[in-house]
Amino acid sequence: MRSDRHWFTNENCSVARTLEIIGERWTLLVLREAFMGVRRFEEFQRNIGVARNILSARLRTLVDHGILERRKYQDRPSRFEYRLTEPGLDLYPALVALMQWGDRHAAHPAGLPVVLEHKGCGKDSVPHLVCSQCGEQIGARDMRAKPGPGAILEQA
Amino acid sequence: MRSDRHWFTNENCSVARTLEIIGERWTLLVLREAFMGVRRFEEFQRNIGVARNILSARLRTLVDHGILERRKYQDRPSRFEYRLTEPGLDLYPALVALMQWGDRHAAHPAGLPVVLEHKGCGKDSVPHLVCSQCGEQIGARDMRAKPGPGAILEQA
Repeated sequence: MRSDRHWFTNENCSVARTLEIIGERWTLLVLREAFMGVRRFEEFQRNIGVARNILSARLRTLVDHGILERRKYQDRPSRFEYRLTEPGLDLYPALVALMQWGDRHAAHPAGLPVVLEHKGCGKDSVPHLVCSQCGEQIGARDMRAKPGPGAILEQA
Repeated sequence: MRSDRHWFTNENCSVARTLEIIGERWTLLVLREAFMGVRRFEEFQRNIGVARNILSARLRTLVDHGILERRKYQDRPSRFEYRLTEPGLDLYPALVALMQWGDRHAAHPAGLPVVLEHKGCGKDSVPHLVCSQCGEQIGARDMRAKPGPGAILEQA
């Protein structure tokens, strides 16, 4: 018996496809640093405390998938920096969600190291999800998953 | 020279602390299934296609961290199911963000397998983040990270 809600496999699931690219702890920490404004290899390396060969591999994956862009900023010797692309910037809600969960449920006893300010209104902000249709705040219990156009619908 | 925005280490960073618990591909796929209503070992195993020993270990981690609750639903033989706790349900925005990024940037050619309906208004919804203070929609460029009460502030 298959679940009647099994409309996807790891192949067509958007969560799984995203995790194929960024679903690894070091990769997500590289992205955390990128969102904090870090651009250079040495600074990623020092802030994350990751081995250089692992960092090189993770940066390459992110560049290959169009999440970071590698740009030369110096000649002789050539030096490169890594900047978030538009698709990379679209990962912001995922990083914010991971941060907020940690803030609520796994915070360090010393308190939160980072707060977010909304430039538009100038206030400290704890962004939350709202429905794109009615604007109401939503959480897990407010939403129902339904088969989409690419769902795999099988008869039992 | 340290970055002037280096207010955290992996130890006090909320992103890193969350990833210590859930930052592994199989764990996040277990959570995907849990949000789709899956509760039983066999169904997790079949839907994710993960080895049983890995699945056991990941479920144990999630139970140990209070994200899933293990409940007996049958005696003789004893059988258990796994349900999301309140802290577990709070991971919904992270899963939605990963799904939405995949929908936008890594979709399968067949299309999206899942769409979300907001039970409150009855419409298909693509939830987005808004500022908790002014309600405006926000993205990476709209926000500024600032040192919080637990920030590590060092003089260079």
